[in-house]
Amino acid sequence: MRLVTYSRLGVPSIGIELEDGILDIPEAASRFGRMHHIHGKLFPSTMIDLLRWSAGIDVVRQILDTYSESELEERPLLYNFDSIRLLAPIERPGKIVALGLNYRDHIEETGREVPKFPVMFAKFPSAVIGPDEPIIIPKVSKKIDWEIELGVVIGRSCKEVSEEKALDYVAGYTVLNDVTARDIQKHDGGQWVRGKSIDTFCPIGPCIVTADELGDGSGLKMQTKVNGIVKQDSNTSNLLFDVPQIVSYLSQSFTLEPGDIIATGTPSGVGFARDPPEYLKPKDIVEMSIEDIGTLRNPVV
Amino acid sequence: MRLVTYSRLGVPSIGIELEDGILDIPEAASRFGRMHHIHGKLFPSTMIDLLRWSAGIDVVRQILDTYSESELEERPLLYNFDSIRLLAPIERPGKIVALGLNYRDHIEETGREVPKFPVMFAKFPSAVIGPDEPIIIPKVSKKIDWEIELGVVIGRSCKEVSEEKALDYVAGYTVLNDVTARDIQKHDGGQWVRGKSIDTFCPIGPCIVTADELGDGSGLKMQTKVNGIVKQDSNTSNLLFDVPQIVSYLSQSFTLEPGDIIATGTPSGVGFARDPPEYLKPKDIVEMSIEDIGTLRNPVV
Repeated sequence: MRLVTYSRLGVPSIGIELEDGILDIPEAASRFGRMHHIHGKLFPSTMIDLLRWSAGIDVVRQILDTYSESELEERPLLYNFDSIRLLAPIERPGKIVALGLNYRDHIEETGREVPKFPVMFAKFPSAVIGPDEPIIIPKVSKKIDWEIELGVVIGRSCKEVSEEKALDYVAGYTVLNDVTARDIQKHDGGQWVRGKSIDTFCPIGPCIVTADELGDGSGLKMQTKVNGIVKQDSNTSNLLFDVPQIVSYLSQSFTLEPGDIIATGTPSGVGFARDPPEYLKPKDIVEMSIEDIGTLRNPVV
Repeated sequence: MRLVTYSRLGVPSIGIELEDGILDIPEAASRFGRMHHIHGKLFPSTMIDLLRWSAGIDVVRQILDTYSESELEERPLLYNFDSIRLLAPIERPGKIVALGLNYRDHIEETGREVPKFPVMFAKFPSAVIGPDEPIIIPKVSKKIDWEIELGVVIGRSCKEVSEEKALDYVAGYTVLNDVTARDIQKHDGGQWVRGKSIDTFCPIGPCIVTADELGDGSGLKMQTKVNGIVKQDSNTSNLLFDVPQIVSYLSQSFTLEPGDIIATGTPSGVGFARDPPEYLKPKDIVEMSIEDIGTLRNPVV
């Protein structure tokens, strides 16, 4: 399933992206699942609330099955793509765990050594924006760079899980742009968080594809275009530490919670490593595509 | 005012700490403010919801005034300290922004240079625990250290604020223990986030003292005791970058949001810089006191 957060007539909700439009999840739950409420609470209308409900994704799948088997005239709930606006699939993740140096060709272009363990930092949730929202060049930096990453969305709380069990806790995958202020990244006494957490520096989207369709997220082509020109071109199979390894490793230190997002690192082709270096500027268009997930497009202002 | 998050009979709520007990905020709002609902929503019952409501703290102050002026027989709402359990004042802050190297004597003991700007990193919100909850020594580290810090609680969203206006956005202050796995801090390719974000590594409490009582938070004695022995002994006036400077500086890069917490750095006396080094071990008791706020006590298991 392709799950989206979207707004229609200015009202945010969650939906399933189908071929012809968006099926609103709370509406479909009411109509096809006969579920307005769960234990006296309204049916979840945000992605994080849906994920926090352990049965949430399974219930949505059942509702979709009922919808798909229903008579054609019962399908007026589908909203045209023209009538809606996609939002970040998760507006405020509890945490965004980010990995650096997780593709060999990117490690080479940065001139660093191949790490023996995942190198981890954080992006603040306040940096999240959705598809088509602008990346805003801040006053504090002029060296704004792109980084396409496979985003892993956690579906169930986990602590100290094995690699074998790790995928049980993954709800799905999305595209994440780990936008980075390179001057700040090098400036902050070695700490990367501020240069990675400036407002608008974490575009996410366009949807979450559930893990039953993408397995461990490997084998997916990934490509960044800036103004239509290919800048990054790789495959998620090139991850140095793969998704089960990452989830297991991180969970040895802290609990991964529903709605947390892991940014798994970027392949080569970032701006600062180019000759001459390239940075984002106003009016640029950044398009990041991961196979079977979709394209995350953001203008720069 | 001294604001707390607490549970009574297992039910979490928010309250005002008075001399003789806890005044429950939603109950007092209903009884003394005649406010059960605000715009059709229940009166806030979590600290972060109270802070997100821009008038929240002012309304609570008015309710307290009405309560204080009321007849004595109208005060059955006060809960004995024996009958309640304090929780972390904010269970899941949107973000925890942490500063390193912000007291000269601590910078000296680490052997680093005095930074020309605040050195910033992150602690994950999933690390937060409250008063008397145990700091759990994880399997991944044996070098667990203490760091007493003045915690700044953001009350209103702010971006690019001046130092002069910065305190307008501060709701109050609390005590925060920036528990740190020193081996991991040095291990992670220079990134501090994982060693600072292990589960239970962010005790916060016992309360939030509102900013009207503490101004910019300077001039407060601070002391860490481990098993009753003083380990850190300083004053918030020794901050290299003070609270208005910190809030203004951070807000140049990202929006500070209601319920965000800033950990402002620790003075000297941490364990790893001692001769011989000292680390926390099971059965230790850590007590951190900041004048006019209170004592945050956590056992180690």
